[in-house]
Amino acid sequence: MNFDIEILDTTLRDGAQGEGITFSLRDKIAVTETLDELGVSWIEAGNPASNPKDMEFFRLASSLNLKNSRLCAFGSTRKKGINVKDDSQICSLLEAGTEGIVIFGKSWDLHVKEILQAELQENIAMISETITFFKEQGRTVIFDAEHFFDGCAGNKDYALSTIKAAVEAGADRIVLCDTNGGNFPASIEAGVRDVIKIAAVTQIGIHAHDDAGLALANSITAVQAGCTHVQGTLVGFGERCGNTALSALIPSLELKLNLRCLPEGNLVSIGELTRRVAEIANVSIYDDMPYIGSHAFSHKAGMHVDGIIKNSRSFEHINPSAVGNERRLLLSEIGGRSAIVEHVKKIEPSVTKDHPVVVSLAEKIKKLEAEGWAYEGAGASFEILIRRELQRYTPFFSIEAYRVLSEHPASENIQCSHAWVKVLVGEQYEIAAAEGVGPVGALDNALRRALARFFPVLEKIRLEDYKVRVIDGKEATSAKVRVLIESTDGQKNWNTVGVSADIIEASRAALVDSIEYKLIYEAEKKE
Amino acid sequence: MNFDIEILDTTLRDGAQGEGITFSLRDKIAVTETLDELGVSWIEAGNPASNPKDMEFFRLASSLNLKNSRLCAFGSTRKKGINVKDDSQICSLLEAGTEGIVIFGKSWDLHVKEILQAELQENIAMISETITFFKEQGRTVIFDAEHFFDGCAGNKDYALSTIKAAVEAGADRIVLCDTNGGNFPASIEAGVRDVIKIAAVTQIGIHAHDDAGLALANSITAVQAGCTHVQGTLVGFGERCGNTALSALIPSLELKLNLRCLPEGNLVSIGELTRRVAEIANVSIYDDMPYIGSHAFSHKAGMHVDGIIKNSRSFEHINPSAVGNERRLLLSEIGGRSAIVEHVKKIEPSVTKDHPVVVSLAEKIKKLEAEGWAYEGAGASFEILIRRELQRYTPFFSIEAYRVLSEHPASENIQCSHAWVKVLVGEQYEIAAAEGVGPVGALDNALRRALARFFPVLEKIRLEDYKVRVIDGKEATSAKVRVLIESTDGQKNWNTVGVSADIIEASRAALVDSIEYKLIYEAEKKE
Repeated sequence: MNFDIEILDTTLRDGAQGEGITFSLRDKIAVTETLDELGVSWIEAGNPASNPKDMEFFRLASSLNLKNSRLCAFGSTRKKGINVKDDSQICSLLEAGTEGIVIFGKSWDLHVKEILQAELQENIAMISETITFFKEQGRTVIFDAEHFFDGCAGNKDYALSTIKAAVEAGADRIVLCDTNGGNFPASIEAGVRDVIKIAAVTQIGIHAHDDAGLALANSITAVQAGCTHVQGTLVGFGERCGNTALSALIPSLELKLNLRCLPEGNLVSIGELTRRVAEIANVSIYDDMPYIGSHAFSHKAGMHVDGIIKNSRSFEHINPSAVGNERRLLLSEIGGRSAIVEHVKKIEPSVTKDHPVVVSLAEKIKKLEAEGWAYEGAGASFEILIRRELQRYTPFFSIEAYRVLSEHPASENIQCSHAWVKVLVGEQYEIAAAEGVGPVGALDNALRRALARFFPVLEKIRLEDYKVRVIDGKEATSAKVRVLIESTDGQKNWNTVGVSADIIEASRAALVDSIEYKLIYEAEKKE
Repeated sequence: MNFDIEILDTTLRDGAQGEGITFSLRDKIAVTETLDELGVSWIEAGNPASNPKDMEFFRLASSLNLKNSRLCAFGSTRKKGINVKDDSQICSLLEAGTEGIVIFGKSWDLHVKEILQAELQENIAMISETITFFKEQGRTVIFDAEHFFDGCAGNKDYALSTIKAAVEAGADRIVLCDTNGGNFPASIEAGVRDVIKIAAVTQIGIHAHDDAGLALANSITAVQAGCTHVQGTLVGFGERCGNTALSALIPSLELKLNLRCLPEGNLVSIGELTRRVAEIANVSIYDDMPYIGSHAFSHKAGMHVDGIIKNSRSFEHINPSAVGNERRLLLSEIGGRSAIVEHVKKIEPSVTKDHPVVVSLAEKIKKLEAEGWAYEGAGASFEILIRRELQRYTPFFSIEAYRVLSEHPASENIQCSHAWVKVLVGEQYEIAAAEGVGPVGALDNALRRALARFFPVLEKIRLEDYKVRVIDGKEATSAKVRVLIESTDGQKNWNTVGVSADIIEASRAALVDSIEYKLIYEAEKKE
């Protein structure tokens, strides 16, 4: 397919060079399928000479039925002083059997002299012969000019002579790399323009790193200067501070520069697919990631919330739905009634900003926040608060009493913490006991057990996440803690909060809200 | 002090508008002191009209003895249709008593019409009168031209007329805001150049947001176009995707553009101080943060490690020590040891990098870190670890057993949590009980009581701070937690750490280290 900008994702190669990133063979296949679903033009899937796992991947990959993407294997120019055909690394690249071959070569004379310890002219021959070899084999050759911009700063003539050699050898793409990630947009622009002068007919690309936090800006600048091929990784990980985050670059190119990078209609999936890659790599997407982060369209200050309701353009640079994200109006002491009313409307659509319930909720939130509660990350607890204020809520159960005992060393045949809980449901009491790793786990287990016979649906709930924040640490162990819990029933996730100077009480409050929330929704489903 | 670039940090205002960021009064003071230590020119410390906590802060702040920074309060132009003196928001700003007053006003006609619902001319008057008022009061007025760049795109003449009004009213700084964070460097550059034409004698500033991942690039571009005042937040948090991360911007300006932003010698502390602000806000510094992240100078690919050993410039854009960071070679044992040896030398000066204790400590730390321990914020625990490795440490006591019971509702005449602890000191046992607000407090009280008759000096120890972090939230209530404790004897503070899936056990470990550390120092005093 022909796009304005050709995207090459290197999650499986440069991304795998990020600290803490390791892909199994199965992971690599799952990432490949995800990138193909998004529709990037090229997937740089590994360095077959560097490890057997990558070679095994290429063996399996030939049977993948990719819809949109083509695979490429990554390697270097031939070693100094040998024939290209006798270089085992070159043979591995060939054996990988991919349509695309990415060859990196040195453009910075410092690297040629000190790292390769080769003659400058020999390096030119290494570039030229390696590219010629793969062109003769009918492959698409992408030449990565490593350290091109640092090379220009050091010895521009030499850097450009490496590019000339690659063009003359028939490289299909010349990719200018800011390998150390330290360049500013101005030098990127100058470098791209210099190359275009000598490589008018070859497609030029950019490969940027984020060591100065400028990978996105440098990639955009390069595109504006004439590059039509961009390398990066969907989530942004890679060596050191990472590569250009394609999940942030592609929306900028498509929505703001009107340059098509992906098959039509695929941009809305970019958040979901980026999360999937992150999930496979076992890392988290930062909440404040441009375009796709959960905070990217969260509005907190009262004046911002007020503005958004009047005209969303007032505080949003794009429509969040264009990238499959959504707007969130946060609740806080610096937010105002406008945010509250939006939440109340979901339960009682007739309510306006001046409704007494909204006024009293605003007061209540201010007071609760001063005590350490925070509803921003606890939508389900906030909904229970609204329902209580609307007098549309009767708790399904109450905890009459509980005890939690933690002992070290543990007694025989029992975990360190054990708890019993007595609940009241309607007019029926139930008491149950359980053990756990810590006191909160034990309490949670006992509470679920006590409620099980009344509400079998609770069996489906699992805790997804548990966070503790000491609100004012200076009170030390009698400081208040805020507990945030994320629960799931497998289909939907919800968040609740509890605050107390006693961590067990704070956890109890968040656990009770979580269960009540599920029961409210089950009851409404039946109505 | 006169710098090339004046830095305004808005962690306490725009930063506090970031999702999940809440500062207590005590937090705000700690952040202010940290920013002053770094030496930013201005600290925008809050919006006194928006909430009582900010006003209370300004009341307390006048007694802070800041060495480098000046405070400013943030608010808006007067409301439409009233006299500036009758605007309660303006009165709050005045009352805050700061040297600097930051006034934001509308530069985008869309906002004037749809959000303020005011006449275009009335908005000009609001800007003008508000600035005039504060100049008459002898304040330094910083005018934030909200949405300036979007305003230029919509109605450039009007946007520039708001700037003209601010200049004529005597604003000391004109700050151009990319409030929605959606602009590219090219439009930032054009906007700054347009303003410089009409405001030649006023100092121009930039306030960028990161919604397209370009806040850093836009700030650098603005500086290159002539801005000499930059706003941002040290860690980078703020409304939605956050503000310009000053911890990444300042190194770029100082090291690459040779523009002084901080007092001489302070740049090396930027990582440590940014971490401190993050710690106060209870957020993590991303590992891949430019310049200061723990991965920023981590080298993983074999060829990179090889290059770094030959010449560090080959794969590093700056020397990590310039920002107080350090190189880590992930595939070798060299990484980390230099830091460890510095700590070991404090106890045993003769030790070198190749000493077996240093080698085994490096191994041990790697293992412990993989289990969730972190010694960065726990120097006392780390020292105990070193002493143990040097075989220069015999614990003063051991906890033989303990039990903690939490019950709700509480029994009569006793607090919700109670604990007993049995300790062994030399050959003597002691058992003691105590109560507390929560289980950790009860355990702490009982432990001190049991040890009191052996070590009367412990009476002087108080816990100053207690922090809990869930290490992997996805395991929910059986996730590991890391507890950090700060203790004091009134003269000296020290920090210890504990890790466990059981919060009581994690706290126990940190408490024991804290007491042992004090006893070690008491014993050495006597020697």
